[in-house]
Amino acid sequence: MIQGIAASNGIAIGKAYQLVTPELTYEKKSIDNPNKEIERLEDALQTAKQELEQIREHTRKQMGDEHAEIFSAHLLVLDDPELVNPIKDNITNENVMAETALEKTTNMFIDMFQNMDNEYMRERAADIQDVSKRVLAHLLGITIPSPALIDEKVIVIANDLTPSDTAQLNREFVQGFATDIGGRTSHSAIMARSLEIPAVVGTKKITDAIKQDDMIIVDGIAGDVLVNPSDDELAAYKAKQEKFEKQKEEWAKLKDEPTITADKEQVELAANIGTPDDVTSVLSNGGEGIGLYRTEFLYMGKNQLPTEDEQYDAYKSVLEQMNDKPVVVRTLDIGGDKELSYLDLPEELNPFLGFRAIRFCLENEHVFRPQLRALLRASIHGNLKIMFPMVATLEEFRQAKGILLDEKQNLKDEGADVSDNIEVGIMVEIPSTAVTAKQFAKEVDFFSIGTNDLIQYTMAADRMNERVSYLYQPYHPAILNLISTVIEAAHSEDKWVGMCGEMAGDSIAIPALLGLGLDEFSMSATSILPARTQLRGLSKEKMVSYKDKLLSMSTTEEVVEFIKEKTE
Amino acid sequence: MIQGIAASNGIAIGKAYQLVTPELTYEKKSIDNPNKEIERLEDALQTAKQELEQIREHTRKQMGDEHAEIFSAHLLVLDDPELVNPIKDNITNENVMAETALEKTTNMFIDMFQNMDNEYMRERAADIQDVSKRVLAHLLGITIPSPALIDEKVIVIANDLTPSDTAQLNREFVQGFATDIGGRTSHSAIMARSLEIPAVVGTKKITDAIKQDDMIIVDGIAGDVLVNPSDDELAAYKAKQEKFEKQKEEWAKLKDEPTITADKEQVELAANIGTPDDVTSVLSNGGEGIGLYRTEFLYMGKNQLPTEDEQYDAYKSVLEQMNDKPVVVRTLDIGGDKELSYLDLPEELNPFLGFRAIRFCLENEHVFRPQLRALLRASIHGNLKIMFPMVATLEEFRQAKGILLDEKQNLKDEGADVSDNIEVGIMVEIPSTAVTAKQFAKEVDFFSIGTNDLIQYTMAADRMNERVSYLYQPYHPAILNLISTVIEAAHSEDKWVGMCGEMAGDSIAIPALLGLGLDEFSMSATSILPARTQLRGLSKEKMVSYKDKLLSMSTTEEVVEFIKEKTE
Repeated sequence: MIQGIAASNGIAIGKAYQLVTPELTYEKKSIDNPNKEIERLEDALQTAKQELEQIREHTRKQMGDEHAEIFSAHLLVLDDPELVNPIKDNITNENVMAETALEKTTNMFIDMFQNMDNEYMRERAADIQDVSKRVLAHLLGITIPSPALIDEKVIVIANDLTPSDTAQLNREFVQGFATDIGGRTSHSAIMARSLEIPAVVGTKKITDAIKQDDMIIVDGIAGDVLVNPSDDELAAYKAKQEKFEKQKEEWAKLKDEPTITADKEQVELAANIGTPDDVTSVLSNGGEGIGLYRTEFLYMGKNQLPTEDEQYDAYKSVLEQMNDKPVVVRTLDIGGDKELSYLDLPEELNPFLGFRAIRFCLENEHVFRPQLRALLRASIHGNLKIMFPMVATLEEFRQAKGILLDEKQNLKDEGADVSDNIEVGIMVEIPSTAVTAKQFAKEVDFFSIGTNDLIQYTMAADRMNERVSYLYQPYHPAILNLISTVIEAAHSEDKWVGMCGEMAGDSIAIPALLGLGLDEFSMSATSILPARTQLRGLSKEKMVSYKDKLLSMSTTEEVVEFIKEKTE
Repeated sequence: MIQGIAASNGIAIGKAYQLVTPELTYEKKSIDNPNKEIERLEDALQTAKQELEQIREHTRKQMGDEHAEIFSAHLLVLDDPELVNPIKDNITNENVMAETALEKTTNMFIDMFQNMDNEYMRERAADIQDVSKRVLAHLLGITIPSPALIDEKVIVIANDLTPSDTAQLNREFVQGFATDIGGRTSHSAIMARSLEIPAVVGTKKITDAIKQDDMIIVDGIAGDVLVNPSDDELAAYKAKQEKFEKQKEEWAKLKDEPTITADKEQVELAANIGTPDDVTSVLSNGGEGIGLYRTEFLYMGKNQLPTEDEQYDAYKSVLEQMNDKPVVVRTLDIGGDKELSYLDLPEELNPFLGFRAIRFCLENEHVFRPQLRALLRASIHGNLKIMFPMVATLEEFRQAKGILLDEKQNLKDEGADVSDNIEVGIMVEIPSTAVTAKQFAKEVDFFSIGTNDLIQYTMAADRMNERVSYLYQPYHPAILNLISTVIEAAHSEDKWVGMCGEMAGDSIAIPALLGLGLDEFSMSATSILPARTQLRGLSKEKMVSYKDKLLSMSTTEEVVEFIKEKTE
């Protein structure tokens, strides 16, 4: 049995598929004909291109445009003369094999991009790495595994799953993951939860311990992987799998039930989504709304801004699928760790404290206005609410709302239909906004608390930085006090408050948030039914009675102990 | 008349000294004897070394060890085989002139260091640049100006003043500055205020407009520079100078007066210092204490940690000079934008949200304990208070205080004398700490609000980032509310609250802070007497009566207008 980190719930039993790139080594030889090497390179580039086009097509059909994007990025790399010409020059000038020239040149670009403090450039480095491997494999006549082409049920074993790997995986056939590296918040883990398949990550040695086609069990609840299990083991895990499936069935019964506490108080359970494709899972998991539609994906993996119409189509699709259930769309939150090559954002010493989200949009109306227009046009197709991210001052909110109203007028003047019932709110993710929520509550229609950022700013600790990750404390009394300030301010003006950070779906946080009076909890779709189950067992009145006690506590530890004790 | 940014108050009238490096250009020639070039290089290195030693000695005598440190850093660069050997190799391998090899090699290092997201490495880049210029000048037989050797009264004109330039300036002879670039918070501006000499920065063209020995007037109040003024102009500015001197004399009369408001309420005016040398200016400006002794300077510009005894000497010196007036020492606040080469701190994506200050010290007790021991030993020489920086949670404070008490016991066991009346407090510069001040107030002896960081975290805006600097709003209602929370929490437990950020000396902030109940205002020494003058004209009762109104305001603009109206 191999132990790792439980990254996505459930038990998978099946055949292992080793998604491991073969060693691409070769002997360095002197060459006598550079032109022949250039020809070999061009052949390999051409074959790689055909292969990538085939994979892209396959992915698009199986999984949609979004997932196929990564291969478009790879094809762009293959076609980039700024990359390909230096390889050819290197062959000619240094009189070396195509393999050597390819590796030397691409490594130079990868090193350069990887060392930039810029997430986007690091992604480009990963793209170049992927493409370089593929071309090298073709030069060497070696086949590399193409997860996109898997056509039977398997459990994927890998060192780590890159975004490009997971983009290729066919949900229909992949039953689970197990990886050598990674943690609960690594890409593979998040992907597994989104695909609703069991996963164990950070096993350190899974790729060494397992051979292609081994029978394995991945226990994503306990974090264990079993290789070629005995019959007894198989039986035990089948029972565990069944029990989990039963629990899921229990949860599923609540799919169309309202979210009501033991003492008959109702709250809303909504989902966070990134693309229109995600709505299916929201509905199948009983989501009562979209609490956060992140619109960044529309802007990513592209060479230019999405058009107003492209955006309109996406927003309309989400609104129509949700069929008059509330959909809260967050306007573009770019910058920080999310960058876009074509916008030429400045490199910053502290990007999390920098020029991002609403700050960027207010200074770049050519980006902001088309999004607002697309949203306004889509508003007639459902129950749209708009919120602005990273608002720190009332002036920012007033300015953003002013631009929105301006575009609404423009659209009306153009004869377009626009709903008159769009609520306009803000994300509360900056301490200043939480502290002055009373002032904001008079002007906004709602608040949505973004705990991921609110916690990192309140504790002054970068949540991506391992050295200070111990300070990322969602249950810290300071966080609870700020949340309470926001909720009290909103309710005193008859406004509602949601939460769309990780915290909203957390089983320790839920009782506390209920006690603080939170109206809407927005989380990953798969957390909704467990949360509904938990909420049905909680008394709101009791939780409210603990509020003052919770807010006066000194440490996170005290808070957690108290909640556990009171909800046992 | 040339306009710039008023960076340091006062009027200077005198002769211009052009601190401009001459053009160091040369014609590239092919060489036939690399050994001769290596010899030329070694001669130039040797001459530069002698010159730097002479300047260092001069600076040490005139201005003390602290200021001479920069030249030790330059001498280290000159002696570094990792820099010198590649230059020699370059001469031999590429068969080039010493000048070419020097420039090529040093530029490579400068580029590399400058592009690191690391303040310390960028400083090293600046050192290499300085040294490289000096050696190149010697190779070319050109003399570069040595400000350390100025021996008559002058006004210094420069493109910008680097730390190495200002370290060399002799306070006795330099009457003022005017520079092409920079702003109110640039190094030259801060230096001018600390030297108490007039300065105008950011004029864009001063070095072009002024010739060596021109008669000039620098008006640091209005931000103007006059070149070869007429007799009338000279008379007018002499009058203005006299008026300013009179005002300074008025202020000076309050030097030994208590700080009492119009309605006889007393507050404390203290100073922020960086080294024991700064105490002279604190006392001459009537400081009633040290509100912030930044201990980082003891750790900077060195190759290793300062010893416990070195630290003890510095702390003892400050305590003795202050003669039982309170001295609040902040323990090491390293990391973020302040790094130390010999500690090998990790490079971080968001250093301001990273592993710094108390976070670092708690994990590096071999650094922390010697500082605490030095402080404890020095405690018997005056009125010492200790505070920990960047505390975000009560656990951190408890742990830090635990280590302090542990070392106190160790010292007692060793037979050393330690005061039993050392107050132990914290900086409040992280929102979580301000929000939970009530919980902290039960355990700390005092708070000192560090507004520079508190504002940047509360507004989620890097104060060094020009794109978001508009969000650095000291008077924002959120900041005032947090300050008020801290003061109310402290007073309810009979603890005192100081403030040691820029805000404490700001004439708009002072009335608001008085109204919120702040006990101690700590600022640059030269701001103390103007602040005392202002406070003597304010009624605390009146300011307190505006408190609720101020805290409920919506924007910074409203706050500023209100304060201006009420204090006119």
